[in-house]
Amino acid sequence: MTPEDARALFPVLERLAYLNAGTFGPIAQPTADAIRAQLDTELEQGRFGKEYFERMLELRANARTALGSLVGVPDEHVSLTGSTTDGCNIVLAGLDLGPEDEIVTTREEHFGLLGPLHASGARVVVVDPEPEAILAAVTPRTRLLALSQVLWTTGRALPVRELREQTGVPILVDGAQSVGAIPVDAGGLDFLTISGQKWLCGPDATGGLVVADPERLRVARPSYFSQTAYEESGSFEPADGAARFDPGWIATASLAGLVTALELPPEWRFERAAEQTGRCRQLLAALVDLVDGEATLVAFRAEDPPDLVATLFAAGVVVRDLPGTGLVRVSCGWWTNDDDLHRLAAAL
Amino acid sequence: MTPEDARALFPVLERLAYLNAGTFGPIAQPTADAIRAQLDTELEQGRFGKEYFERMLELRANARTALGSLVGVPDEHVSLTGSTTDGCNIVLAGLDLGPEDEIVTTREEHFGLLGPLHASGARVVVVDPEPEAILAAVTPRTRLLALSQVLWTTGRALPVRELREQTGVPILVDGAQSVGAIPVDAGGLDFLTISGQKWLCGPDATGGLVVADPERLRVARPSYFSQTAYEESGSFEPADGAARFDPGWIATASLAGLVTALELPPEWRFERAAEQTGRCRQLLAALVDLVDGEATLVAFRAEDPPDLVATLFAAGVVVRDLPGTGLVRVSCGWWTNDDDLHRLAAAL
Repeated sequence: MTPEDARALFPVLERLAYLNAGTFGPIAQPTADAIRAQLDTELEQGRFGKEYFERMLELRANARTALGSLVGVPDEHVSLTGSTTDGCNIVLAGLDLGPEDEIVTTREEHFGLLGPLHASGARVVVVDPEPEAILAAVTPRTRLLALSQVLWTTGRALPVRELREQTGVPILVDGAQSVGAIPVDAGGLDFLTISGQKWLCGPDATGGLVVADPERLRVARPSYFSQTAYEESGSFEPADGAARFDPGWIATASLAGLVTALELPPEWRFERAAEQTGRCRQLLAALVDLVDGEATLVAFRAEDPPDLVATLFAAGVVVRDLPGTGLVRVSCGWWTNDDDLHRLAAAL
Repeated sequence: MTPEDARALFPVLERLAYLNAGTFGPIAQPTADAIRAQLDTELEQGRFGKEYFERMLELRANARTALGSLVGVPDEHVSLTGSTTDGCNIVLAGLDLGPEDEIVTTREEHFGLLGPLHASGARVVVVDPEPEAILAAVTPRTRLLALSQVLWTTGRALPVRELREQTGVPILVDGAQSVGAIPVDAGGLDFLTISGQKWLCGPDATGGLVVADPERLRVARPSYFSQTAYEESGSFEPADGAARFDPGWIATASLAGLVTALELPPEWRFERAAEQTGRCRQLLAALVDLVDGEATLVAFRAEDPPDLVATLFAAGVVVRDLPGTGLVRVSCGWWTNDDDLHRLAAAL
């Protein structure tokens, strides 16, 4: 597959310089086709029968395997969730923390992580997103590090594995802006959340949660998928591995789309995304006030970000502003070409 | 709309005597069209921009209003969930019960309710699904009654409002087999779960949770929709009303399908469903060993339920067995006609 072939997968790219995978990736034609085919079957044949359920279970198994292989873990460590928020909530609810416990996080996290931290009842210690600050905040009461692998604000990458190793404290890594964007290895991480809808270009309300040791996290939000047998009091025999954390049904059509989306990326996906992000930074450096960052997000300062985003949108360039930060954010993927970047530069 | 017009909405009914809305309702053509139209927009125009987000928010608002009006409550009492299981988990996590607390439930509940009860950490007191047994199980430590309005096993209806009134104990009503099947009034109920995919014939992974007093339930599983403003520690200003419990993003295409599905039913929906269930009972009484029940489910005893269900499926009749009970279950809706019922009777 050449970059041109890859690009042709995504109809939206014919019209727009779509540079917003950090919110939602573009949808590929085969992904939409897979969703539609499943919907057609359900419409015509009903949502029932051995075939229907076997198909659903096969899609779940395939999604689990594909998400696991993407981050280097076997499928028994992968739970299928609806979002990274979902994953964070599952972890925090299962850890049973209290007011005596501390969680260290940074001041540049998304509410999808912060909300669950707050709801846990633990004391949330907020520091700058700097390894030294994070290390310095760890005390004997720290039960969890909760960090983005790539900050959604700037694209800066945090050395999550090293922080885990140096502190010995369990870590919840929010992979919303890393998985699918840069190479990610979940080995050595206790918990990693995955978004299906961003860099993986899957349907909305899909995602995953990697749990290194399923036996050590309580199933705080059981669903039918969590058990293999149950008593009349609700006490249950947990499903094998991380499937016990599956929080519920995912639309079968969305599963079909996700599995297809996960099969599409070429081998050179990460190399190309990094290359195009570099070109983006180069092009923009002369035009705007760039913020330092790695990974595949490029943030820059603007006087009136919402206004600039609207102006760019009118010119067929899709980027987003980050409320309260004065920043505009550009997302570059393996589908991004030079034309997209030049349209952005020209519109600026 | 005549019964024949209603029936013509559902392509699956041209092929099958589809009698399984207790698992998944049939999908109507306009519902599938609404899903497809939204998917097409996302494919061609991307999932971004003012229009996209306004459309998503409008769909959420419309779904909330429609679900609320269906059960007689204003939309500020409705949270949009992915399933009834989701709703049960939100309530149980938010009540912060402990081992000193008791919950009274019945021995004919679904794991979607029982699992969350168990996960709450409270003592689960299980009794027969009889009003007297439920009343007798209430002690000063009872913090919650957790009951199906209609039992998924037999279609028996429990007098949930009366039980709430007589005990003064808060009640969580699982509406999986009631909302959309029979008239339901959420007034006087503390919590009511709604399934989008069963009797409402909506997309899978949609549903609702009615919360009578949102201020009195903790937001245990926050999502971006839960807040209107937040601190860097994750502490947040809750969204107005029950929207604060919205556990996360619902696929926009699924929302479009749900809103359309909620608009379709004719005024005579409940009357017709009850009438057809009565005819079903009449027809089957002479053929099988029926279990008593009300509402729109009809259960009967069979020697080998999975085998019988497979035989019926081969004859184009879709019903289900209930593992571990020796029962086969038939679901009758406002779309069910005499021909469906005669096909079932003939195949038996």
